[in-house]
Amino acid sequence: MTAIRYEHIKTCKQTGARLGKVHTPHGSFDTPCIYAGWNAGNRKNDEPEELKEMGANIILSNTYHLWLRPGEEIVKEAGGLHPFMNWDGAILTDSGGYQVFSLSDLRKIEEEGVHFRNHLNGEKLFLSPEKAIYIQNALGSDIMMALDECPPFPAEHDYMKKSVERTSRWAERCLNAHRQTDTQGLFGIIQGGGEYEDLRRLSAQDLTSMDFPGYAIGGLSVGESKDIMNRVLEFTTPLLPANKPRYLMGVGSPDSLIDGAIRGIDMFDCVLPTRIARNGTCMTSEGRLVVRNAKFARDFSPIDPNCDCHTCKNYSRAYIRHLVKANETFGFRLTTYHNLYFLLNLMKQVREAIMQDRLGDFKEVFFEQYGFNKPNAKNF
Amino acid sequence: MTAIRYEHIKTCKQTGARLGKVHTPHGSFDTPCIYAGWNAGNRKNDEPEELKEMGANIILSNTYHLWLRPGEEIVKEAGGLHPFMNWDGAILTDSGGYQVFSLSDLRKIEEEGVHFRNHLNGEKLFLSPEKAIYIQNALGSDIMMALDECPPFPAEHDYMKKSVERTSRWAERCLNAHRQTDTQGLFGIIQGGGEYEDLRRLSAQDLTSMDFPGYAIGGLSVGESKDIMNRVLEFTTPLLPANKPRYLMGVGSPDSLIDGAIRGIDMFDCVLPTRIARNGTCMTSEGRLVVRNAKFARDFSPIDPNCDCHTCKNYSRAYIRHLVKANETFGFRLTTYHNLYFLLNLMKQVREAIMQDRLGDFKEVFFEQYGFNKPNAKNF
Ligand SMILES: [Zn+2]
Ligand SMILES: [Zn+2]
Repeated sequence: MTAIRYEHIKTCKQTGARLGKVHTPHGSFDTPCIYAGWNAGNRKNDEPEELKEMGANIILSNTYHLWLRPGEEIVKEAGGLHPFMNWDGAILTDSGGYQVFSLSDLRKIEEEGVHFRNHLNGEKLFLSPEKAIYIQNALGSDIMMALDECPPFPAEHDYMKKSVERTSRWAERCLNAHRQTDTQGLFGIIQGGGEYEDLRRLSAQDLTSMDFPGYAIGGLSVGESKDIMNRVLEFTTPLLPANKPRYLMGVGSPDSLIDGAIRGIDMFDCVLPTRIARNGTCMTSEGRLVVRNAKFARDFSPIDPNCDCHTCKNYSRAYIRHLVKANETFGFRLTTYHNLYFLLNLMKQVREAIMQDRLGDFKEVFFEQYGFNKPNAKNF
Repeated sequence: MTAIRYEHIKTCKQTGARLGKVHTPHGSFDTPCIYAGWNAGNRKNDEPEELKEMGANIILSNTYHLWLRPGEEIVKEAGGLHPFMNWDGAILTDSGGYQVFSLSDLRKIEEEGVHFRNHLNGEKLFLSPEKAIYIQNALGSDIMMALDECPPFPAEHDYMKKSVERTSRWAERCLNAHRQTDTQGLFGIIQGGGEYEDLRRLSAQDLTSMDFPGYAIGGLSVGESKDIMNRVLEFTTPLLPANKPRYLMGVGSPDSLIDGAIRGIDMFDCVLPTRIARNGTCMTSEGRLVVRNAKFARDFSPIDPNCDCHTCKNYSRAYIRHLVKANETFGFRLTTYHNLYFLLNLMKQVREAIMQDRLGDFKEVFFEQYGFNKPNAKNF
């Protein structure tokens, strides 16, 4: 009995995008979907009720942060992440590797794992595939991620090949270390960068031969162009089994969500909506809106007149601008809420479009309205 | 027609505390009550819905902050503070004087008003009684406060007398400047410090002769002992008309709320519950709880087992401690919510006790359980 099961509902005749459902020990979620990252097993500023009312059924939590603080043993003692955080939907945890590579100092990668100093107090720590699984087993997430290495872009073919091979060996060690396959599903991560189709193929072959209940595509959105990302997805997703969910890691701009779905991706996570919200930047149906701008000082219309989220129904650009300028937490709460809602709502529209075999048409209209077709289009 | 009307319901036979209702253009609230301060016309982190669900019908907003940012003209253009902030209950604004005295630099008090440099950019500004009223008229609050001077404790009798006399002249100028008496009620502020009964009497006599729709007692909780505060209240409230509401400014510790009610106070405001919450300190039925403390790391019980607030129903001390230690906004949101709820709920119990002529008994049990009777009792 596997903890995670993918149910395929329909393929979009216009684009090939997949409509499905992922079943987990803590409920199901419809795909394609995006989930919010809850840093440190916290959420920046959103209540479970709020996420539920937006339609979210899965969230992402960071293994690295929880490992360091409060420590996986305390979470385990609480009965796992679900009761600890008061979230009864599905939880996906990453392996901790990404934060080790991006936040910690003095890391050293060896075959056995990664030596590093933690970013809080400089303490020497060691993360191995076995340790990443041990922590995630203690956290009790529904979907766990294997420890991988995500090399920078661009990287030499030689280095990338060695890295892909090590990621495969680490994936195997993760599988062997996993103790709770009935209640937690472990995903393998395909690496191989943006440049080397042969290495993506090698990685996909290695990983799929290990028969994970789901697969992630990592190593994208690390600085390469959108064209490269789309090309990698085009040749990678066909290498993955159709009966397993596919997760594109760290990609969350509206255009990439649609482009990813069209290329067969089912799951996306991203910190983008919350990160830019903390800067007062909002995604709207008519493109990016920087609410700090002086021109909104007397604009009493909502962030997005086409949005029916709590923020847009109750607060004006002028008021939110005032809060953001005054550095008031509540302002960031309002912008974060809107951005999350916007992306969750976008994915709902994507699913509807797949159901009706018109995701290509939807993309065209959405891109035009958002401004992605303009020559100087911004990323988000 | 006056904007603010006090309806007296009952006097507690055991203590003399007043049970009443204050009617405003934006609904009524039961007294004795406490209201949360929403800094800068923002709320630190609470939604109107959340305050309503706690039973709050009035909030406090700061004239000084709104004057500086976004400016009273923008608030006026939005239709006033109520639509701007999305709060349809009653709003009380202070005069701005307190922040001028506590936040700004290089202030100089003259008969005409106060010269100061604002704390944001050092700009030279001038706050007069007329200006304080002009701004509050633009903000459109239900209850406005007259501009007063609040001298430090202790102060010389001579200085205090001059200050009290000036506060009376300023109160008169405020009354004369007030343009919207049908929709906004202006309260006068009794000053006179903690030491000089004659000056409190002088101030009360001056102010009551001007017939404000409500009276505040200022200049307390500025460093004097609880005994002095209680003594001042004992001889001051009898000087105030029984048919007008009485507001004790800046006092919000649980013991002082009960002691104030017993001495005839109807309204309290305080930043204490939110200020200490941001430090991870909670008020509970069994006294102060510092949730940061290491002993709560594995304590999966709620902040206050006797509290049925949203925080206590859903989150453990261990989880909140984790959030607070990780400096996560959401943690402060949870502690703030609990503290506000705790005080609003305390006032509800106080009102019930008055209704049943047993506020003295209630005080005894509450003080004992909270720990106020201990020799080393903390202030909150
Ligand atoms: Zn919205
Ligand atoms: Zn509580």
